[in-house]
Amino acid sequence: MTFTKLLTILSVTVALLACNRKASENPPTVIPLPSLQTNEFAIVIHGGAGYLTRKNVSPELDSLIRSKLTEAITVGHIILKNGGSSLDAVEKTIHVLENSPLFNAGKGAVYTHQETNEMDASIMYGATLDAGAVAGVTTVKNPISVARKVMENSPHVLLSGDGADQFAQEQGIEIVGPSYFATKKRLNHVRKIKAEILKKTASLLTQKYPDYKFGTVGCVALDKNRNISAGTSTGGMTNKKWNRIGDSPIIGAGTYANNKTCGVSSTGHGEYFIRAAVAHDISAQIEYKKVSLKEAAENVVQQKLVELKGSGGIIAIDKYGNIQMEFNTLGMYRASINQIGEIYTGIYKDE
Amino acid sequence: MTFTKLLTILSVTVALLACNRKASENPPTVIPLPSLQTNEFAIVIHGGAGYLTRKNVSPELDSLIRSKLTEAITVGHIILKNGGSSLDAVEKTIHVLENSPLFNAGKGAVYTHQETNEMDASIMYGATLDAGAVAGVTTVKNPISVARKVMENSPHVLLSGDGADQFAQEQGIEIVGPSYFATKKRLNHVRKIKAEILKKTASLLTQKYPDYKFGTVGCVALDKNRNISAGTSTGGMTNKKWNRIGDSPIIGAGTYANNKTCGVSSTGHGEYFIRAAVAHDISAQIEYKKVSLKEAAENVVQQKLVELKGSGGIIAIDKYGNIQMEFNTLGMYRASINQIGEIYTGIYKDE
Repeated sequence: MTFTKLLTILSVTVALLACNRKASENPPTVIPLPSLQTNEFAIVIHGGAGYLTRKNVSPELDSLIRSKLTEAITVGHIILKNGGSSLDAVEKTIHVLENSPLFNAGKGAVYTHQETNEMDASIMYGATLDAGAVAGVTTVKNPISVARKVMENSPHVLLSGDGADQFAQEQGIEIVGPSYFATKKRLNHVRKIKAEILKKTASLLTQKYPDYKFGTVGCVALDKNRNISAGTSTGGMTNKKWNRIGDSPIIGAGTYANNKTCGVSSTGHGEYFIRAAVAHDISAQIEYKKVSLKEAAENVVQQKLVELKGSGGIIAIDKYGNIQMEFNTLGMYRASINQIGEIYTGIYKDE
Repeated sequence: MTFTKLLTILSVTVALLACNRKASENPPTVIPLPSLQTNEFAIVIHGGAGYLTRKNVSPELDSLIRSKLTEAITVGHIILKNGGSSLDAVEKTIHVLENSPLFNAGKGAVYTHQETNEMDASIMYGATLDAGAVAGVTTVKNPISVARKVMENSPHVLLSGDGADQFAQEQGIEIVGPSYFATKKRLNHVRKIKAEILKKTASLLTQKYPDYKFGTVGCVALDKNRNISAGTSTGGMTNKKWNRIGDSPIIGAGTYANNKTCGVSSTGHGEYFIRAAVAHDISAQIEYKKVSLKEAAENVVQQKLVELKGSGGIIAIDKYGNIQMEFNTLGMYRASINQIGEIYTGIYKDE
């Protein structure tokens, strides 16, 4: 697998097609629909946004991250290519990221103040607006799968804490002990942060520990039946207290999908993403302002969030298959792949 | 205190002024701003929506409900009249409803499957988009006050479970034992529902026990400084399992407030309200489609929610002081009061 860097070409294509689309919608023109479908199917993932520069990401980590992103997105791409559903693509792609210690989700979940691991996840299906989510599970290997079970096998959208773990067990989801999530590096981080937080500001800690506030994984996919799904999974904020819940399990903030507009997965300082209802706001701007995904994402991430002082980013795919990866931090682990198999991986702002 | 029924007059006024406003916004005209301000300050509350008809609400309960709604809203009205903040008005008004056994919030919280009481609440301040919420607290007398403390005294938006109770205690919030929430009627309800759920459909149970899925209280206020606040508090769904979280503590679903648009508090079958991002969607339609609060609320509650088969309602106030009470159920406990002290209380659809 090679790591082709096609961002520039992709961006220009997306921008040109976005312009076409916008022109076709407002005011209406006679451009036929097929010309608007830039991708018959598409997939995009993130592995968290944050203080990521070539200076503080070693070449080894850079390479490991890109390799794992490529492995994950390829899983989803093959499902979509074979006519599978976007829901399956999102779930199976996120499994790869959750099973890696590189990202703050599943296996690599950061530690709470009490030195435990509490994970959140959510998934949404744009065809029906069905959604499922869990907050604060502690025993589940793959939180994204419990979120899907909540959506499909319960009358609820959001389960939390011990109840969510119990539901997972009842559903036959793979349960693991605390030792599964035990990663020395993460444990050291929370201990150092607890010690340093008294002397240092949060922004300094964020530079030193990129996953301190921002680690998350997410996936958005459009399948050949034009159904959009989005999912997000996280270990939350390092050193979190009081069973804090961030944006990842919040439908409308961390995740949203609507076949009429787009699918979105967020990563960032969750509190700001909740207050700005980031994922739903991008969908709402496409629906009501009739702007392109690119314009909506830029407005929310580069303007509205910045005004609130909220850091982070989003990945999204609109109903035409346009892909957007937008962040206001120095970097975001990300990858996308279109129907002809062109893979893009990125970490820093300038690529 | 008399219960004046001014809905018709109010509706006509709201509709006329909404028309004026719409005309003034799209396309822009020279109508001066002051003419758009229908109320210098305003307040509206709900005590839950559901299967409420004159047949299944006794005259005694009808009278008790209206009396308590009037008492609650008067507390907030006086705060606003004296130049107080909408945040104080929302919190203190909700206290009255939380302290009454009549509503499914605080003292009157329904029981979970495990015969415990788990409460959710949220609050949002439209001037700054600051927000706070708690999910699944069990020891707090007034959950709306913890939500406010989360907003003002923590870096977080949403705390849950035992952690949220611990935070409440650290903040000096009034803590009570399980016996405080013990209401014989509610306990009988959950036991009957557990017995009957095997033989009856959920919709039949919803008719028999109006609070089964829908009980909530909420308040939206606009103060003399044109700041909008919204808050919601609930005991959740009777017989809920797995630490289910509904829409009430979800910013964007159960509660939203933005000085640029409106404030909203929801009540209804929470899962649908989360999937439709009800509170944020109403705000987004005003912001992006430039429609009136009335149009936005009708679209979301009478069309979008109905298409999803989601039952419930909302209360809202826009930046001009227009009040909206919209529901797609047979009834909603509700009251509003405008700056000249005219009180409206309603339960059924036809009043």
